[in-house]
Amino acid sequence: MFTLPQKDFRAPTTCLGPTCMQDLGSSHGEDLEGECSRKLDQKLPELRGVGDPAMISSDTSYLSSRGRMIKWFWDSAEEGYRTYHMDEYDEDKNPSGIINLGTSENKLCFDLLSWRLSQRDMQRVEPSLLQYADWRGHLFLREEVAKFLSFYCKSPVPLRPENVVVLNGGASLFSALATVLCEAGEAFLIPTPYYGAITQHVCLYGNIRLAYVYLDSEGVKVKGLILISPQNPLGDVYSPEELQEYLVFAKRHRLHVIVDEVYMLSVFEKSVGYRSVLSLERLPDPQRTHVMWATSKDFGMSGLRFGTLYTENQDVATAVASLCRYHGLSGLVQYQMAQLLRDRDWINQVYLPENHARLKAAHTYVSEELRALGIPFLSRGAGFFIWVDLRKYLPKGTFEEEMLLWRRFLDNKVLLSFGKAFECKEPGWFRFVFSDQVHRLCLGMQRVQQVLAGKSQVAEDPRPSQSQEPSDQRR
Amino acid sequence: MFTLPQKDFRAPTTCLGPTCMQDLGSSHGEDLEGECSRKLDQKLPELRGVGDPAMISSDTSYLSSRGRMIKWFWDSAEEGYRTYHMDEYDEDKNPSGIINLGTSENKLCFDLLSWRLSQRDMQRVEPSLLQYADWRGHLFLREEVAKFLSFYCKSPVPLRPENVVVLNGGASLFSALATVLCEAGEAFLIPTPYYGAITQHVCLYGNIRLAYVYLDSEGVKVKGLILISPQNPLGDVYSPEELQEYLVFAKRHRLHVIVDEVYMLSVFEKSVGYRSVLSLERLPDPQRTHVMWATSKDFGMSGLRFGTLYTENQDVATAVASLCRYHGLSGLVQYQMAQLLRDRDWINQVYLPENHARLKAAHTYVSEELRALGIPFLSRGAGFFIWVDLRKYLPKGTFEEEMLLWRRFLDNKVLLSFGKAFECKEPGWFRFVFSDQVHRLCLGMQRVQQVLAGKSQVAEDPRPSQSQEPSDQRR
Repeated sequence: MFTLPQKDFRAPTTCLGPTCMQDLGSSHGEDLEGECSRKLDQKLPELRGVGDPAMISSDTSYLSSRGRMIKWFWDSAEEGYRTYHMDEYDEDKNPSGIINLGTSENKLCFDLLSWRLSQRDMQRVEPSLLQYADWRGHLFLREEVAKFLSFYCKSPVPLRPENVVVLNGGASLFSALATVLCEAGEAFLIPTPYYGAITQHVCLYGNIRLAYVYLDSEGVKVKGLILISPQNPLGDVYSPEELQEYLVFAKRHRLHVIVDEVYMLSVFEKSVGYRSVLSLERLPDPQRTHVMWATSKDFGMSGLRFGTLYTENQDVATAVASLCRYHGLSGLVQYQMAQLLRDRDWINQVYLPENHARLKAAHTYVSEELRALGIPFLSRGAGFFIWVDLRKYLPKGTFEEEMLLWRRFLDNKVLLSFGKAFECKEPGWFRFVFSDQVHRLCLGMQRVQQVLAGKSQVAEDPRPSQSQEPSDQRR
Repeated sequence: MFTLPQKDFRAPTTCLGPTCMQDLGSSHGEDLEGECSRKLDQKLPELRGVGDPAMISSDTSYLSSRGRMIKWFWDSAEEGYRTYHMDEYDEDKNPSGIINLGTSENKLCFDLLSWRLSQRDMQRVEPSLLQYADWRGHLFLREEVAKFLSFYCKSPVPLRPENVVVLNGGASLFSALATVLCEAGEAFLIPTPYYGAITQHVCLYGNIRLAYVYLDSEGVKVKGLILISPQNPLGDVYSPEELQEYLVFAKRHRLHVIVDEVYMLSVFEKSVGYRSVLSLERLPDPQRTHVMWATSKDFGMSGLRFGTLYTENQDVATAVASLCRYHGLSGLVQYQMAQLLRDRDWINQVYLPENHARLKAAHTYVSEELRALGIPFLSRGAGFFIWVDLRKYLPKGTFEEEMLLWRRFLDNKVLLSFGKAFECKEPGWFRFVFSDQVHRLCLGMQRVQQVLAGKSQVAEDPRPSQSQEPSDQRR
């Protein structure tokens, strides 16, 4: 463990206003301004700085101070996701509604998934599935998860069911791991830009901070390192050598490493050469290496709520399992997941080839649109998103301009995620999610182009309510 | 709010050893010795007092101090539930295995439930169910919950979907409510004896204590009151006048009231006259009254993980919903629950009459067995359990003897719950769960009777490892 300067990963003192990330958060946004790095037990006046004072006013006196902060995270989502939710695009019913290129979901394979989940082998209802079960997950499921990960992570030795804990999604797993690994107020290192919702996941229950890897001195105890591989939002993958370097670094400092491989099977470019951390011949510090995977991305089922931990550390597995009473998933769903994961034929011969082909086609479409517009971007052939460089559209290069541009997109009915939400250092980067049907992508890109060309209705004439005032969070 | 003396609801300084309650905890027990009333950030040496020192030794140095406490709760379950789990009774395969009369599950209606959940209307798989949804729960489900509760709680006015938040079970709801209503270290009042797993639910994430209602002075801030109605383990119900009195008392002290009505539809004696708090003409303090219900007991599906909050307080609903990303349930299960709850014909004409008849028959059987043995008990015709007075079998009337008697039962292959696990003040009370098939009840009661008559193989000759040493937790 080592320490980092308190000031450097304190929350910004100014509030950037509403959020634009909806990934794991969906119906309430992912406000990522690092507020969680504040102490949860702060009192009302100190909380005011982080949001709209009106929201943390006397009518919330029913809540504890942490309750108010938790509610604030929900409320602050309104401008982005809720605006979208109230005005969702529908080809027939609401063709002028908002196109969502902000939430990282794969909407390309519902036909395949609906078919698979409707097969007769999914419909088992038996008493053992309706009764209290092992909170680590039913053994039949943990066995399937171990086999599944052994195969798809290309593990040199078979992975073991006793190292598996299943629960209702990756968000829960971050929450549980943060709580059992860290004291309140300690921190995890994370390379930025990163999937910003993790800020909340480690904070709301666990009261853990994130320390961005561009920091470099001392003050707060760092307990671990979070690696997202393939990376979100960059779509990058780590080479085995890079993975090894991170792991050796972590071991040297006795840091836990949480490796989030939730996009592991969404590498649609063969040339990318993705490697799971579980494929390494030898983990430098297996007792401090904890791998997570879920079906939300790779099987395009964020609403199904299934995630899993793989760790050789039985203390960690047990402590997480002990919290699983709060993160449990239905026995019926556990049965379905076991059926799904064991159907290697369907996964290998139907689902993965088709999913990858569709992801690649959608990626190609959006990439070519961006090239046609002369917009630079980063994308490595993994994940559901392209990291787009719109810096040239910000005259002064500030985060305020980034927010204003994001609002112009939303006002022109296309929802994106802005770079600040990923703690990107440079203003002007946006995440475009491409894993959607082409007619929606096409319309979304048209709307993006209108805004960038200054042709959207509102771009030149922002209404007063569209200012970047932090208090404007209810829109 | 008012304050209670710190010392009075501190954890006991001696450890009673293993636990015997498995309700919501199932695979890891419900150790209820009040350990949660200690501060979570206590250091290792202070934790040693609460369990087996060997368990909190250097090999758990990977965990934070709260992680070690969380793991300890899991480990401490071993003697009861795990002994059972390794040696479960099965009529054919393991007739000398352990009969479980300790876990409060209804095992009488799996035939009805399996049939209902296998019907075609349950099998819907559609994209919206597989995508991120409102964390409060899909609107279609919250609408059904509101109608369901309006009807079965006999609400004077229709209950409203916007006051409903659904999540994966009652344990999660206690965890979320404790966190958003209280600061760390504050307390809820609870009348004892009570369903002791609540101790963990409010503590593991939320760091909240319980203050037993027999306490009466000052020192720690009390933030609310928990009522379990019908009561667990007493099987009592509160009259409308009693409910009103509690609510008025709470209002006077500005206390939140959490009313746990998880056995609401398991009142099998018509004469009992159960009333839901939602049936009251007017709640004294509706903004501080929060009602919970779940399908685990009333629909005998503890493994399905479905629970719901009903509160008029939108701040509380929102803050709980914000935590629901960690307590979410599958869209597929949400759909199934909506189908189930809306099938009023099946519930009223098939399920409830049959369930109540079976509960009543099982209750009659165990009651008569107890009467034949000359054993006094309390039971009011609600819930799955009988509160049995075995005080005359404890020569000195100590909790050590209670634990020893519980071990004798377990050694004679019948698992029960002892009174200390419910914070009962008098040693010698046990909870017998009767909601099981008659052949298992019959065998269980025979084994109970053998122990009480001193005829069990081990009763007169406890092995050394069966002593009540606190460190003996691995059995």
